[in-house]
Amino acid sequence: MSFLFECTECKKHYLPGEVLYLCPACSAGAASMEPLRGILRCVYDSGAISRLLTREALRLRNGSTFARYIEIFPIESAESVPPLMAGATPLRPAVNLRRALGHDGVWVKDDTTQPTASFKDRASALVVAAAREGDRDTIVTASTGNAATALAGQAASVGAKSVIFVPQSAPAAKLAQIAVFGSMLVPVKGTYDEAFELSIAACEEFGWYNRNTAYNPFTVEGKKGAALEIWEQMGCASPDWVVVPTGDGVILAGIEKGFADLVALGLADRVPKLAAVQAEGCCPIYRAWEKGSLEIEPERKPRTIADSISVGVPRAGRLVMRALSSCGGACAAVSDEEILDAIVLLGNTTGVFAEPAAAAAIAGLKKLIDSGTIRRDESAVALVTGSGLKDVSAASRAVTIPKAIEPTLQALKKLIG
Amino acid sequence: MSFLFECTECKKHYLPGEVLYLCPACSAGAASMEPLRGILRCVYDSGAISRLLTREALRLRNGSTFARYIEIFPIESAESVPPLMAGATPLRPAVNLRRALGHDGVWVKDDTTQPTASFKDRASALVVAAAREGDRDTIVTASTGNAATALAGQAASVGAKSVIFVPQSAPAAKLAQIAVFGSMLVPVKGTYDEAFELSIAACEEFGWYNRNTAYNPFTVEGKKGAALEIWEQMGCASPDWVVVPTGDGVILAGIEKGFADLVALGLADRVPKLAAVQAEGCCPIYRAWEKGSLEIEPERKPRTIADSISVGVPRAGRLVMRALSSCGGACAAVSDEEILDAIVLLGNTTGVFAEPAAAAAIAGLKKLIDSGTIRRDESAVALVTGSGLKDVSAASRAVTIPKAIEPTLQALKKLIG
Repeated sequence: MSFLFECTECKKHYLPGEVLYLCPACSAGAASMEPLRGILRCVYDSGAISRLLTREALRLRNGSTFARYIEIFPIESAESVPPLMAGATPLRPAVNLRRALGHDGVWVKDDTTQPTASFKDRASALVVAAAREGDRDTIVTASTGNAATALAGQAASVGAKSVIFVPQSAPAAKLAQIAVFGSMLVPVKGTYDEAFELSIAACEEFGWYNRNTAYNPFTVEGKKGAALEIWEQMGCASPDWVVVPTGDGVILAGIEKGFADLVALGLADRVPKLAAVQAEGCCPIYRAWEKGSLEIEPERKPRTIADSISVGVPRAGRLVMRALSSCGGACAAVSDEEILDAIVLLGNTTGVFAEPAAAAAIAGLKKLIDSGTIRRDESAVALVTGSGLKDVSAASRAVTIPKAIEPTLQALKKLIG
Repeated sequence: MSFLFECTECKKHYLPGEVLYLCPACSAGAASMEPLRGILRCVYDSGAISRLLTREALRLRNGSTFARYIEIFPIESAESVPPLMAGATPLRPAVNLRRALGHDGVWVKDDTTQPTASFKDRASALVVAAAREGDRDTIVTASTGNAATALAGQAASVGAKSVIFVPQSAPAAKLAQIAVFGSMLVPVKGTYDEAFELSIAACEEFGWYNRNTAYNPFTVEGKKGAALEIWEQMGCASPDWVVVPTGDGVILAGIEKGFADLVALGLADRVPKLAAVQAEGCCPIYRAWEKGSLEIEPERKPRTIADSISVGVPRAGRLVMRALSSCGGACAAVSDEEILDAIVLLGNTTGVFAEPAAAAAIAGLKKLIDSGTIRRDESAVALVTGSGLKDVSAASRAVTIPKAIEPTLQALKKLIG
């Protein structure tokens, strides 16, 4: 483990241990209802590492993505990573989806197969590993969804304690899943943002370790593993596009970081163009992008079926805006109806069952192909970030169940015409 | 592909193509409300294959379990297997679960990570492969649960048609998931058994291919893949016990078959002792076992939270009774309360979220350890056969969600004492 933190705003460097979460200078006095300032980025000694982490070396390495790329993860040893084994998910060629979209170069990165069934296992696994190496036995997050479940599951697998702060409005079923993993659940009378603030205060008070997304710089690092995998699965090449469902923006920032690290090591030739897909009912990043502004106006009343990207205040929004600009990327907003159609399209053509936020990537992919933004001679990887089993009620809205028939061949013949 | 069918009752052999499902002689005139008679077993030329399928050969082979063991699967080519990639699931050492159970040799075979989140992907993948090789483009099953979802998903991934017959009482959420995969859903006014009978009649009428569990001999073959994986994951050794949640009995029959094939090839030294775990509210196999009888009395009114093993008429019951006898196995019945406790125990100690039927394996494991049936010097693998995301309402019954607190440190301190 040899890295420095670099502030993504003022570019100041810090030693690990000197700071934990945000750049003290840039985050001082920041308001709570806007994107974070002073998010830290892990910087590695690319020159030295590029001699160790070569294509030849990778061919001979086994184990998880964390183990194989250990030099560019901010932990001492891959042994610290929970045995629940995040990552190493399939990149599916999706032949029938290609036919449906009229595009030969489409791939689906299927994170529905993660241990707790979402992309968030990647970040939680790394944060738990870092906590173990730092002898912090209690890890905290504010979340009601996939991040909470992932932290709860990853922590349980190594016997670490987790504390999850949730707004009291969180659905009981999701809370039950978190409780099954033995987390201490703290429902808070208030909003998500109040839960977020309380989680930070609690970490300061009790010396707990905070996993809040974007706030903890290792969440971006954990998520970058998907980029490393995509690069290898494409035959050690960057695709032209990666299409990312975007709420708080940390997944997109993680994909950018992974490819940027590969470029710095001389392994990849470029960072792909990134496309951020948001839901029309909650698209502060899309609005800023359309205006050509780097300043994100929070969405006060998010309204979308895609709960995992229904984020009014994208905490990593500033990273997203910079990443989209620097890679020549794009942004799309899709309606709930398009999302529901995409659940069916993806299921029908691949057998992959996506939650609404994940299906948004497919809806966005279709939109960007149809508009010519993603050209037919370009390759595009869509991130399917969470399982449809997390929200079966959404799927119910996407399909029609036929009426029951009498149990006879005659009735069946009538049904199928 | 070189195999014969052998009737599990009269031992008569058939060429593939001569029969498809059951032994015509033994199944003639059988009643529909009892375990099937004349289930066929695939028999391979072990002598010839043992020279090809050696430990050394396996070390050099890559790809899916179907590809690596292609000589003992009833298909021409692993290319026929759907790209949704069933199998190759983790065998977790479950260190913290061991501590909780006071048993050092416990392992969890985690099939919650399958593409459609249950063990049933294994059987469906093989049946779809066989259908493709036999040029049958429509595959049928009667089921309301995991088998239906798995068939729907696996078929979708290769653009094959699937028709799912369900009793009209099936829950809408499960049907939605199946419909998302583009299956033709046929809700039937009647019971599961009427849906089962109609599916068979429809296959005869339209030349469709039937996947009904146990009825189609390839369901046992597909499921045996888990045994092959366990043997390799244990360091090319059979564990002392495999603990199997048991409804219709095909998973247990598949595990027996997999180890028996390994023994026939000279790879494994023995078939492990198998333990069938049933729910107290639906335990016809357990009752027969306790009576020392091979005849299974169907359960007319199944009542258990574990829907995936709530099977009144275990179709593969006769295979199960023979397997349990021949391996010196055991049988356990667990209450719904024990199942709910096991969901929490497994989640807390491993980060694996199990549906009730899958948690029954853990409850049964505990019971068999506590009673001394599974000794502390014996190794035991529990099959966790389906994800808790399939039934989050059950998890809600297993845990208590604390009351909401004010968003202050004071309130938090009071909560944590």
